[in-house]
Amino acid sequence: MSSPEFPGPLFIDLYELTMAAGYFDRHMDAPATFSLFVRPNPRRGYFVAAGLQAVVDVLTRFHFSDEEIDWLARTGRFSREFLGHLSTLRFTGDVMAMAEGEIFFPDEPVLEVTAPLIQAQIIETYLINTMGLACLLATKAARCVHAAAGRSIVDFSLRRTQGIHAGMVAARSSYIAGFAGTSNVLAGKTWDIPISGTMAHSFVTAFESETHAFEAYATLFPDSAVFLIDTYDTLQGARNAAAVGNRMKQKGDTLLGVRLDSGDMITLSRQVRRILDEAGLSHAKIFASSGFDEYTLERMIAGGARIDAFGVGTRMGVSADAPYLDMVYKMVRLGDRNVRKVSEGKMTLAGEKQVFRKTAVNGHFDGDVIGLRGDSVDGAVTLLAPVMEKGRPVGTMPTLKEIRACFADNFKRLEYDYKRFEDAKPYPVQVSERLAELQEGC
Amino acid sequence: MSSPEFPGPLFIDLYELTMAAGYFDRHMDAPATFSLFVRPNPRRGYFVAAGLQAVVDVLTRFHFSDEEIDWLARTGRFSREFLGHLSTLRFTGDVMAMAEGEIFFPDEPVLEVTAPLIQAQIIETYLINTMGLACLLATKAARCVHAAAGRSIVDFSLRRTQGIHAGMVAARSSYIAGFAGTSNVLAGKTWDIPISGTMAHSFVTAFESETHAFEAYATLFPDSAVFLIDTYDTLQGARNAAAVGNRMKQKGDTLLGVRLDSGDMITLSRQVRRILDEAGLSHAKIFASSGFDEYTLERMIAGGARIDAFGVGTRMGVSADAPYLDMVYKMVRLGDRNVRKVSEGKMTLAGEKQVFRKTAVNGHFDGDVIGLRGDSVDGAVTLLAPVMEKGRPVGTMPTLKEIRACFADNFKRLEYDYKRFEDAKPYPVQVSERLAELQEGC
Repeated sequence: MSSPEFPGPLFIDLYELTMAAGYFDRHMDAPATFSLFVRPNPRRGYFVAAGLQAVVDVLTRFHFSDEEIDWLARTGRFSREFLGHLSTLRFTGDVMAMAEGEIFFPDEPVLEVTAPLIQAQIIETYLINTMGLACLLATKAARCVHAAAGRSIVDFSLRRTQGIHAGMVAARSSYIAGFAGTSNVLAGKTWDIPISGTMAHSFVTAFESETHAFEAYATLFPDSAVFLIDTYDTLQGARNAAAVGNRMKQKGDTLLGVRLDSGDMITLSRQVRRILDEAGLSHAKIFASSGFDEYTLERMIAGGARIDAFGVGTRMGVSADAPYLDMVYKMVRLGDRNVRKVSEGKMTLAGEKQVFRKTAVNGHFDGDVIGLRGDSVDGAVTLLAPVMEKGRPVGTMPTLKEIRACFADNFKRLEYDYKRFEDAKPYPVQVSERLAELQEGC
Repeated sequence: MSSPEFPGPLFIDLYELTMAAGYFDRHMDAPATFSLFVRPNPRRGYFVAAGLQAVVDVLTRFHFSDEEIDWLARTGRFSREFLGHLSTLRFTGDVMAMAEGEIFFPDEPVLEVTAPLIQAQIIETYLINTMGLACLLATKAARCVHAAAGRSIVDFSLRRTQGIHAGMVAARSSYIAGFAGTSNVLAGKTWDIPISGTMAHSFVTAFESETHAFEAYATLFPDSAVFLIDTYDTLQGARNAAAVGNRMKQKGDTLLGVRLDSGDMITLSRQVRRILDEAGLSHAKIFASSGFDEYTLERMIAGGARIDAFGVGTRMGVSADAPYLDMVYKMVRLGDRNVRKVSEGKMTLAGEKQVFRKTAVNGHFDGDVIGLRGDSVDGAVTLLAPVMEKGRPVGTMPTLKEIRACFADNFKRLEYDYKRFEDAKPYPVQVSERLAELQEGC
């Protein structure tokens, strides 16, 4: 399983089907190209590409079942001929896309589909939904990784993501962005992502005393126990943890660490660090979890918190400060005609495109050009590559670890000024001369 | 299908399993009661209960497959005895819950589980994830319904929800809250929710001209066509729509309406209304969609927009201004001992509870009391009722239409002052004397 089960092609906005019926009725089956891109977002200077694997999987096996066609027939909205067409429909088109782990910027196509018009149209809802979520969470997670400044962070968002699918995508996208692991066991099983977890307050309160709870846990997990110390009183919790940690030592075991989950983390972490150090447990790590996101992580670290690893949950898992991307999928070419929409404030660039990235001598990204596929930009690499041709995947998809390495390399090459959380410098993205000229003509 | 497929019990935070291993090792299998509730949220004065049907379905068939147990064994984290226990585990507990469509307030339990400790613990991740999302979106949708002040609103959020599951829950929860329908075809099939849709800009640009696009659509949908008129120029689009609408009339067909999707909706809607009226199409409705939420809906209506129906999308579908609920699941009783957590700022009320709602003579809600199950409050109704006993559903669950009617009735009975978007009056929720006393003792 590379993604939660796709619930089938009825996971679609009705208008995709009514439009398809219109195209079918008029025999409009010319190849169309659609661009998937994100409009500028005041809270995000860059985006991280993710979600492509699921899209390729779903497009490869896209079809309507007899039961789905029967249900559509019973709605009375569609002709028998059109439903006959749908029942044999497969995705036979081409897809150009940025690899997962690439960094991209507003208005740059992250994916372009070229397929007979109806095919290209009816995958819109799923494409935006799935790629939008994966990019949204990878982008948010990248910001957290940046803020953590080298400290380990783990995805703890599962219980508060917006549903099951989002919980899976949060684990995968955050791992791409550099998280060390996830609390999500199914994500561990599905994608071989390291899983981690400590204990909840209910565990502590289930025992007669905090010390009893710690001891029970230490028996079972002699090398990986992390005690949650804030159920009653954090400093007393730290002293109890230290006492159990020392008894573990006598048995040859090793307390991995303690976890803080409430209160003033900067002060508490320093006090707890001292308690552990004075007890001879300087190897024991301090974990913290409590509504962290890039902003609070940055403050923790700037404030001198003695925290070794962070559990980052809800606010990452829902991208709380920017909970959606304005990702759109627009027709840019139909047959031999370049097309665009000119509604107020919602411009689209017509034409089949390529994204060119220039690199400075030090390896840093040095500006992008959105151009036509035939353009050439001196010394630039092209970011869109074929991933499907005639409905079949091209080559093999990278593994999740390769995607993670690709992102890590890219992220190093994006200069600090573009990553700032406030007043980030806008990354330079130009439109090529030929692409600009093409807009005049349509 | 009542909900997207549950991906199995490995959809869980690792710590649920490590804690369960701890309980198993210490033979701690006393019945535990956990309370599911939402902590106060500055942006939400009330919440709408939803998601219970999916929870009952999943708990009824909760079990680990052999393949899941094998995978857990291969992690090397768990003893053979514990995995043997998991492999035979079923949910055999009791669940008390508020019905879907009930309105609830911060700190009030919306659900309580009583089950052997391990069972009660390991359903935590799924319960919070699923109930949290359903309540989040039902609450947001209720605010939109309130703002729309009787005008029709439809869920258009599918492409921008945080994933597939969220797209389904958005349709169901918003229908509970009073939306007229959804663009989500699968939700229509799954729950018999009315589906609706118009056309996209790509449809318009796929034709030689806007008028050709409208005509093609009108041929296929002679009674249900809504033309999108902002692709090029909204007022010219309205005139083109009117011309096609009049040709439809000559054939005995009826233009259902036009849709605005960009620009100053208040001004445009008035201008478009005039164009349609002057063309003799006063029956044609004006639909609008463009980043609506309760705040913009309220402004539209206060500003005199001539809009008959709203498509409400992204901001509802992700609850953009408050994208998560601080929903928690806390142990409140274990065996014969009431327990609670006292971490800073995160108080829990110990004990098995009931929520009592008082009603004024005019039928309006008149304050709630959180009490013990044995409490009685004069003239109040109790909101928590048994929905599962010994692991089996109690009685039959209400239909979605019944849930929707239940919410509509409740919502009328919640006074306007509690529904305001700014400075809403806090709804009075007391703790009963006996419940307060019980806190002292633990």
